[in-house]
Amino acid sequence: MIKVGIIGATGYTGVELLRLLALRSDVEISVVTSRELAGVAVHSHFPNLRGHVDLLFSGPDSDLLGECDVVFYATPHAVAMNTVADLLAKGVRVIDLSADFRIQDIPLWEQWYKTKHVCPEIVATAVYGLPEVNREKIKGAQLIAVPGCYPTAIQLGFLPLLENSLVETDRLIADAKSGVSGAGRKAVEDFLLCEATESIKAYAISGHRHHPEICESLNRYSESEIRLTFIPHLTPMIRGILATLYAPVKSGIEVSVEQLQEVYERRYADEPFVDVLPQGEVPATRNVKGSNKCQISVAYSEDTNTIVVLSAEDNLVKGAAGQAIQNMNIMLGLDESTGLQNIALLP
Amino acid sequence: MIKVGIIGATGYTGVELLRLLALRSDVEISVVTSRELAGVAVHSHFPNLRGHVDLLFSGPDSDLLGECDVVFYATPHAVAMNTVADLLAKGVRVIDLSADFRIQDIPLWEQWYKTKHVCPEIVATAVYGLPEVNREKIKGAQLIAVPGCYPTAIQLGFLPLLENSLVETDRLIADAKSGVSGAGRKAVEDFLLCEATESIKAYAISGHRHHPEICESLNRYSESEIRLTFIPHLTPMIRGILATLYAPVKSGIEVSVEQLQEVYERRYADEPFVDVLPQGEVPATRNVKGSNKCQISVAYSEDTNTIVVLSAEDNLVKGAAGQAIQNMNIMLGLDESTGLQNIALLP
Amino acid sequence: MIKVGIIGATGYTGVELLRLLALRSDVEISVVTSRELAGVAVHSHFPNLRGHVDLLFSGPDSDLLGECDVVFYATPHAVAMNTVADLLAKGVRVIDLSADFRIQDIPLWEQWYKTKHVCPEIVATAVYGLPEVNREKIKGAQLIAVPGCYPTAIQLGFLPLLENSLVETDRLIADAKSGVSGAGRKAVEDFLLCEATESIKAYAISGHRHHPEICESLNRYSESEIRLTFIPHLTPMIRGILATLYAPVKSGIEVSVEQLQEVYERRYADEPFVDVLPQGEVPATRNVKGSNKCQISVAYSEDTNTIVVLSAEDNLVKGAAGQAIQNMNIMLGLDESTGLQNIALLP
Amino acid sequence: MIKVGIIGATGYTGVELLRLLALRSDVEISVVTSRELAGVAVHSHFPNLRGHVDLLFSGPDSDLLGECDVVFYATPHAVAMNTVADLLAKGVRVIDLSADFRIQDIPLWEQWYKTKHVCPEIVATAVYGLPEVNREKIKGAQLIAVPGCYPTAIQLGFLPLLENSLVETDRLIADAKSGVSGAGRKAVEDFLLCEATESIKAYAISGHRHHPEICESLNRYSESEIRLTFIPHLTPMIRGILATLYAPVKSGIEVSVEQLQEVYERRYADEPFVDVLPQGEVPATRNVKGSNKCQISVAYSEDTNTIVVLSAEDNLVKGAAGQAIQNMNIMLGLDESTGLQNIALLP
Repeated sequence: MIKVGIIGATGYTGVELLRLLALRSDVEISVVTSRELAGVAVHSHFPNLRGHVDLLFSGPDSDLLGECDVVFYATPHAVAMNTVADLLAKGVRVIDLSADFRIQDIPLWEQWYKTKHVCPEIVATAVYGLPEVNREKIKGAQLIAVPGCYPTAIQLGFLPLLENSLVETDRLIADAKSGVSGAGRKAVEDFLLCEATESIKAYAISGHRHHPEICESLNRYSESEIRLTFIPHLTPMIRGILATLYAPVKSGIEVSVEQLQEVYERRYADEPFVDVLPQGEVPATRNVKGSNKCQISVAYSEDTNTIVVLSAEDNLVKGAAGQAIQNMNIMLGLDESTGLQNIALLP
Repeated sequence: MIKVGIIGATGYTGVELLRLLALRSDVEISVVTSRELAGVAVHSHFPNLRGHVDLLFSGPDSDLLGECDVVFYATPHAVAMNTVADLLAKGVRVIDLSADFRIQDIPLWEQWYKTKHVCPEIVATAVYGLPEVNREKIKGAQLIAVPGCYPTAIQLGFLPLLENSLVETDRLIADAKSGVSGAGRKAVEDFLLCEATESIKAYAISGHRHHPEICESLNRYSESEIRLTFIPHLTPMIRGILATLYAPVKSGIEVSVEQLQEVYERRYADEPFVDVLPQGEVPATRNVKGSNKCQISVAYSEDTNTIVVLSAEDNLVKGAAGQAIQNMNIMLGLDESTGLQNIALLP
Repeated sequence: MIKVGIIGATGYTGVELLRLLALRSDVEISVVTSRELAGVAVHSHFPNLRGHVDLLFSGPDSDLLGECDVVFYATPHAVAMNTVADLLAKGVRVIDLSADFRIQDIPLWEQWYKTKHVCPEIVATAVYGLPEVNREKIKGAQLIAVPGCYPTAIQLGFLPLLENSLVETDRLIADAKSGVSGAGRKAVEDFLLCEATESIKAYAISGHRHHPEICESLNRYSESEIRLTFIPHLTPMIRGILATLYAPVKSGIEVSVEQLQEVYERRYADEPFVDVLPQGEVPATRNVKGSNKCQISVAYSEDTNTIVVLSAEDNLVKGAAGQAIQNMNIMLGLDESTGLQNIALLP
Repeated sequence: MIKVGIIGATGYTGVELLRLLALRSDVEISVVTSRELAGVAVHSHFPNLRGHVDLLFSGPDSDLLGECDVVFYATPHAVAMNTVADLLAKGVRVIDLSADFRIQDIPLWEQWYKTKHVCPEIVATAVYGLPEVNREKIKGAQLIAVPGCYPTAIQLGFLPLLENSLVETDRLIADAKSGVSGAGRKAVEDFLLCEATESIKAYAISGHRHHPEICESLNRYSESEIRLTFIPHLTPMIRGILATLYAPVKSGIEVSVEQLQEVYERRYADEPFVDVLPQGEVPATRNVKGSNKCQISVAYSEDTNTIVVLSAEDNLVKGAAGQAIQNMNIMLGLDESTGLQNIALLP
């Protein structure tokens, strides 16, 4: 039985971890912490868990955390870095859903997250938990940095192009649309139903924290430096990210849509959670709602010599909690799909 | 391995049956039929099933149906009655999600469904598939009439009051709110996003087809005749029914909210899919989205001597496909919760 | 030129007052106050007002208020009562959209609003601003208490039945569905898009502040005491209230739907903002979105001897800002419809 | 009094024309036609018009059309071209909201609309009704082709860049997000609430009919040929288009965001319906819901040397009916803003 702890499980990634773990017969949820809700029943905070999770929230310093096999951080940024050393020292495997260990370039991280990082040396040991590129490293890791929601959809979309050196890397564009759950469960005016429904807008035009994460990660697989225009949009729905990616074909290269289709299908042939759609079908976020799948399609505009990739995921599953569990499965040598087979809820 | 067939699986109850059955290791989906889509891949019609269901739709007369252990009808009304006799004769267990076998009073059925019933004698053998009242009969049944979505939520809400003779039965009110998926996947103007979102309205004011079903069923458990005002409302969301029920306390009886709470908790103590909430909590349809649970709370307005019951379900699960599978499990002697444990998707 | 001031115009009733007043050629918006936003451009807080309103927010104690012909309070409850005396003393006409002057029974008000009322003597001089019943008193009033959003829809629905003594008044039921804007622009978790969309739930089951307001007001037009079960529901949309009202026909009386239709049409024949629909049509909140209309239809269930009334309004217009302006027009002797003729936005 | 006729006013642009025209004191709506609804009251089809429009729908061949000063076609494509000659011969001014006269290149039009054009010679006389570029020609026109919804938002966004030769014109990208009302009121499965809400997807990846319209129009103002990648997205909301435009800065040119801001502000300084937002604010479709405004902001990504323009409009107003009326006002020598001043409905 795998003993699991979740730190800060009061938001949407927290409840999603619980939804995906509570039904597993090989997992025991030992402890769920929350500073504000210590002593409260988890299911009174998340009524969908009634009958499935009978724990009370513990305080953040619960001794039980040290006895877990795996601890997930579902905390805001700049929390995990303060306590992760203790858990690692106790031999606990740690999977951090926040940004604390996603970026190896510490000054860059500090610039974007506006905080001094307290454990740069631990960052160096963390593995970036995108199984589609890092599966082997994940197997041996003790600390996983789960990729951000946008970075997951965008990297999975761009990877085959970069690995095959098919595009100019200095003029990439990612026009991404996210459901409102990406902002978390914070009581902020912008995310009220009356503010966010029946409207769409771009935000973070001058720079989004996921930009450096995407670029640093893509650079590992690109032969030339990545330059990316990334414009996220707040979309009037709960869940889902659709990334529409634009990449100019590399000078001197000729491509066809058939060839691109083949490149994508081959790249992801053995990936359980990346689904390359046949030509003629396009991803929609509803097709992956509640599931760990990322659906991708590729198109080619000959007129402008531009490749267009569409990449859709559920930001709370493949973009967060599902991917975290996928990492756990890999770390523990389990079947990677364990507990992640649930089918998207449609409609 | 249980061989299952689904007839007419092109709508929302069809895809929901497939979502709930496709992951089961004890079920083999043998045949899925559709008159219009015969030869088309099921997953190209329902992209959430990609990787999970590899069948093509068969024509409606597939011989494979006769070889199934269980066949579900996910057809519109007045279809199942035409072909069910054949399947029954072959020993197939049949679970009809349409209305064809829900009402024993044939002239009443014919009046509301505006069709001549072709097999009244088979109606007489059908079991009304509400496990919370008919579990024993379901065990021995060969033909199940799955209750309608409104009737499920409303009956589960009223039952404890009627069984305990606590209310005047001639002035019951059910004010019910349904998501748009209750109307099915028909391309009808009223159910376009631009017509149905950001608005609420009542409909079928002069009479809804579920009214006679509710009354006939409740009358079996009521000592005096049921008279019910039933007003359904089209609510701007995909899934969910919330029934707000009003019942006047019986003349000469005194009740308290504590007593009512106890009546409800006792009634449903052993029911796996009816969840009586503690005082102070109220059901919301989001708490049961995608799950087979019905959440119920009871309140008492002393000032008007009226009991108010709130009953929430996912109309496509406990109100249709989930309940159908619950019936299958009971018929086959399986654990009633098999394949129905999934937790509601929140948010 | 009518000089208008608005106190606390940072929420949804505030922006709605501005939307409806800014285009009027007979109105000058002199001052708009906000404690937190003093000095900020109104249109940077409400971008829909760009090009239409060029004021900055003033502090709450602006001297300009005293020079206005009319001042609207768009503040939370228990604010207006503290400063209204000064404005009245200066001869300003005051229209309060909050609850401070809606209930004449001061202990009852204090019980529900959990505050000591600081000016009971001024409450006694306030006119309850429902033009359909109080038009003559409004003409001479200096202080108007604008009815709550639920009370407007519910009273307009019940009035013809009570004025004609057609129903038992001790078993009235109001099942009301409100869009989320009824909760205001407060950053509260319950009203986040991810919490409130794609779900419906009842709330305030044990009692809502609008209950005493509705009963006190209806009692003025009822020959016997009103007893009302009032269950409000949070509905996944921005705007709109639909009240579904149930009333038992009075013992010894016979009614027909034709007669009821005639009663309603006659009652509201001269009302510019109450629209009685013909038999066969039902109100939907989308039909009145952005307009000052209340649409009503009446039905009769012979089987249960119950009258069902449907009443739909835009909670921010007829339920708040529009009705406030309707009161202003009446007070100032203007055509009652001035500036309120805009047609609902459909779709 | 301007006598107005509307042909085919049963969809969303039809009701929007009526909403905007019905309150004008200088306009008389003489005739509204519909083949299927002839004889039916307009307000029973569009309940928001109750009390405002008392006409019945006429048949499509009404003689009254010939007596109008202005006739609007709110018909599907390939309808207006069949009857417009008659109206023009009678001296009627015609404003066509469909695509029949938008493209001067007839073979191109025929290729995209898959129909033989019946009156190419009339196309040559039509004026493309984008007032921001064609105001003078509109004044003298008898026949106006109202631009499509996407083309309006996209052209207004790109124009200042092209007129000032600031960008490479062969690698333009328009990533556009449209509310579902852009698809009209057709009962099509894809646009059901249950299909379209809570999801986002791209469509028409291989080519959208608005593409040739945009390119032909932009080419008139561009010194080099336009090549455009245009990806439209179906967004889960009723109204609104947000176009996110990407343009590479022209080789050899240096730009700054201050300079770009100045270019945009100067270009649209005198335009009543184009609102260039200050730096730091971004358009949201909710800010223009129901209004004739197009809100634009411009940003510059130095890292990728890409200009990003955001352009938001209400697709049914500035993208259709409002722009049509703006054209009418110009043709008739009226104040261009007459009847178009209404403020966006927020929230």
